[in-house]
Amino acid sequence: MESSTFVLFGATGDLAKRKIFPALYNLFADGKLSGPLSVIGLGRRTLTNESFQAGVLDSLHAFSRRKVEDSPELQRFLKSFEYSVLDVGHPEDYRKLLGHVQRREEELGLPQNRMFYLSVGPEFFGEIAANINASGLGDTRGWKRLIIEKPFGTDLESARELNDSLNAAFTEEEIFRIDHFLGKPMVQNLEVLKYSNPVLRALWQNRYIANVQITASETVGVEERAGYYDKAGALRDMFQNHMLQLVMMMAMQLPKGSTPEDVRSKKRHVIQSVRPLLRENLAQNVIRGQYAAGEINGRPVDAYTSEPGIGPSSQNETYIAARLFIDDPLWDEVPFYIRTGKRMKEKSTRIVIEFKEPFNDLHNLNRLNLDPNLLIIDIGPEEGISLQLNTKNPRQHGQLEPVSIRHDSANPELPEAYENLIYDALLGDATFFAHWDEVELSWQWVQPIIEATAGGTLPLHLYPAGSNGPAAADELLGDAHWWLDEPTSDAHNKITAVHAADSEAVRPGA
Amino acid sequence: MESSTFVLFGATGDLAKRKIFPALYNLFADGKLSGPLSVIGLGRRTLTNESFQAGVLDSLHAFSRRKVEDSPELQRFLKSFEYSVLDVGHPEDYRKLLGHVQRREEELGLPQNRMFYLSVGPEFFGEIAANINASGLGDTRGWKRLIIEKPFGTDLESARELNDSLNAAFTEEEIFRIDHFLGKPMVQNLEVLKYSNPVLRALWQNRYIANVQITASETVGVEERAGYYDKAGALRDMFQNHMLQLVMMMAMQLPKGSTPEDVRSKKRHVIQSVRPLLRENLAQNVIRGQYAAGEINGRPVDAYTSEPGIGPSSQNETYIAARLFIDDPLWDEVPFYIRTGKRMKEKSTRIVIEFKEPFNDLHNLNRLNLDPNLLIIDIGPEEGISLQLNTKNPRQHGQLEPVSIRHDSANPELPEAYENLIYDALLGDATFFAHWDEVELSWQWVQPIIEATAGGTLPLHLYPAGSNGPAAADELLGDAHWWLDEPTSDAHNKITAVHAADSEAVRPGA
Repeated sequence: MESSTFVLFGATGDLAKRKIFPALYNLFADGKLSGPLSVIGLGRRTLTNESFQAGVLDSLHAFSRRKVEDSPELQRFLKSFEYSVLDVGHPEDYRKLLGHVQRREEELGLPQNRMFYLSVGPEFFGEIAANINASGLGDTRGWKRLIIEKPFGTDLESARELNDSLNAAFTEEEIFRIDHFLGKPMVQNLEVLKYSNPVLRALWQNRYIANVQITASETVGVEERAGYYDKAGALRDMFQNHMLQLVMMMAMQLPKGSTPEDVRSKKRHVIQSVRPLLRENLAQNVIRGQYAAGEINGRPVDAYTSEPGIGPSSQNETYIAARLFIDDPLWDEVPFYIRTGKRMKEKSTRIVIEFKEPFNDLHNLNRLNLDPNLLIIDIGPEEGISLQLNTKNPRQHGQLEPVSIRHDSANPELPEAYENLIYDALLGDATFFAHWDEVELSWQWVQPIIEATAGGTLPLHLYPAGSNGPAAADELLGDAHWWLDEPTSDAHNKITAVHAADSEAVRPGA
Repeated sequence: MESSTFVLFGATGDLAKRKIFPALYNLFADGKLSGPLSVIGLGRRTLTNESFQAGVLDSLHAFSRRKVEDSPELQRFLKSFEYSVLDVGHPEDYRKLLGHVQRREEELGLPQNRMFYLSVGPEFFGEIAANINASGLGDTRGWKRLIIEKPFGTDLESARELNDSLNAAFTEEEIFRIDHFLGKPMVQNLEVLKYSNPVLRALWQNRYIANVQITASETVGVEERAGYYDKAGALRDMFQNHMLQLVMMMAMQLPKGSTPEDVRSKKRHVIQSVRPLLRENLAQNVIRGQYAAGEINGRPVDAYTSEPGIGPSSQNETYIAARLFIDDPLWDEVPFYIRTGKRMKEKSTRIVIEFKEPFNDLHNLNRLNLDPNLLIIDIGPEEGISLQLNTKNPRQHGQLEPVSIRHDSANPELPEAYENLIYDALLGDATFFAHWDEVELSWQWVQPIIEATAGGTLPLHLYPAGSNGPAAADELLGDAHWWLDEPTSDAHNKITAVHAADSEAVRPGA
């Protein structure tokens, strides 16, 4: 790794505090950062270096996975942080920033490698990029890179505009788009699981796979983000980015090598091959949902429309499920069922691969009513790989029953997604970042959903908070069903029954 | 299950005490035996019913997996046992036995179903069968069946003679040959694992499997069986029966149904397809070994030739390993490596399936030096299924390492092999018994080994007690190696080094 200056826009913001400072600290403490560290934090507030450093220390105490104790090393880490005031709209602030960066490069003997991390709203991306360009900050003898975070636009058109504005100052190779799902260890492991295990590679195809189910469910509601969320909905917040990225990671064919370019090319192939949604049968393939009142862990919770900051007639979706097909010989006619929602029964991110039934109707083994084999990849909050097989119950003299063979990555010391991703960006390894092609093609694929929602032709199904989502989402699967949904308890059934009359009703879109 | 009379020859013997009485008791206590139980024990000693029953009770206290407590049920169980004196060579004793059996059938209202269990030496089988025939014991209006135990002969010719003598009184369908390895739950599970799990079924072929390794190793030496063992050797004691049965169970193609006939026909196909051994290269495919002095669990142990009852120049093998091929499209060019021995490092019966390496030399992933995927089926003393996969070590940023996903049948309440097998015989289910064809073909296959051993052309390799067998057995595998052998400890190396000069030397056969 070449050393560089880490220029952090939005250094007084929440993400910096919760994720970026702790990630840098743990990378530093793990000895993964080379050369002298130089971080220049930017914000509108006036701050001394000392008070900025004190803020960094506070954030480490609050959010670092590694316990923080005073030491010369810690002091060295904190001293690497300096602060500059910057208003994103003031070109002269960028010129001052350039002076600051150059002074530190000289002081520390750093090459002119500059990492610009934009931990600010996307509405500022274009202006910042233009000013980096205009100020000369981008004219380096080393490399320059840009890290940005979602949302990358709110639809296809706005995403393209945003990207054009970035491209004025940064090439695609210089842009590292964080999708933090791609930083999760088990998602990064997906690629390895496939290419390094012949037994899984042999099975990773439509000949053996009946369907693939990808779930990212949360138990929390809208929390403090009502303003953003009521506009974005589950579609923009989770589905267009994280869920489709998981589809790509799951379905991509094995790269011949393991270069970032190979991985990206395979991912692009997947998202290009996802069969486009047709307006005519959109409602049969996409289910929008919104949580009604219900109960989670024994506590009653409000309906989405009763949340602070949400209007009582909001038609925003807090849940979205879809059935999609990948028009590729490997995946021909294998449905991918994907869903994400808030206020669901369980907090879980998980991929379940259901294998085809043995023998079909060939002979009398069908009478045994076997469960299908499942490969279960738990991405969070726990990590694990399980394979559900049928074996004989020796006590029942031949009765078959499924057993699970499971590997848990039971390691509390795992790096967080942001550590993995910042490290990769510093290395210049784009494997686990979202390429513009992926972003653009994802928006293109979801565009019919956006239009049908806006046009009021895609119904909104209510579901009780604490359930596994709207009943309509079960119908997506035909004869199959969602695996591993925790059964709704009797107590819960009783409580949700009160709401049943309206909770399962279908309201037409706004 | 139809009720029957259980006629036990050798009722005062060791096997009856250790295995048969406890198995009957546990089947009884599990409610698996139908109708009134009637056991008639036979022996040369004169015993009253009461003292026979007391002996049965003693054996239950000593050997039953289920704790025995006095109860009306237990008393009912014991009262089912009666005793008759019988000298296998006295025809009049069989006529008396017939009277006894008939009296009990009338008393208990039993149908004329008669199970003859020959828990005696094979030298008596023919005479007993003939006398069952001559006495009228075999003329029943119900079924009659025969249970016998190994050894079924000492070579091809003697096995055929033995079988002919049984066939004078019993048809093949009436003969249940116990190979107690076939009663082990995980061996019985093999068939189910394959046919009920599409993911395993897909992988069960030469396209994916590099080799199959079957090991049955013991830590004990010859124990009290010197007289028998020094004549039989590992070849007759373990290899011709148990090891080749495991090959058949492992390699048999999936039966369309699960009838006993299907299973037997598939097993016969396997043993018929094992490529015959050629005299010319026998020594490259079969390794005979004998344990030298060594150390097990920190205790020095004697060489085989120093054991009580064994002559100092014995050329008997205590270890045998072989490489074999099954000439069938499914297994074309997949070597099966099988080995069994006494005084080895570990007590373990295990099948390891090594899958082919990913990619071969296709690209640079080879640099990663991946371990192959392994499916490990532990048959005893612990039972389990593990799949060894490669995954990313998240701490090492992408370093690959194998992890094991494992299912343990951690159930101390499992029925023993004899319970399973006696139950099946009472049901008339021959799935897990050795068919004559299997026995005959197994003898036929090992016959060149017997002849080369007798002719002194197959060397005997010494190995230190407590090791993983003779070094020559490693060479059978070419570039591959035996998986999961516990490394020999330094301490052990040091001690065995003392014996190295002679322990690895090759002595020509006697």
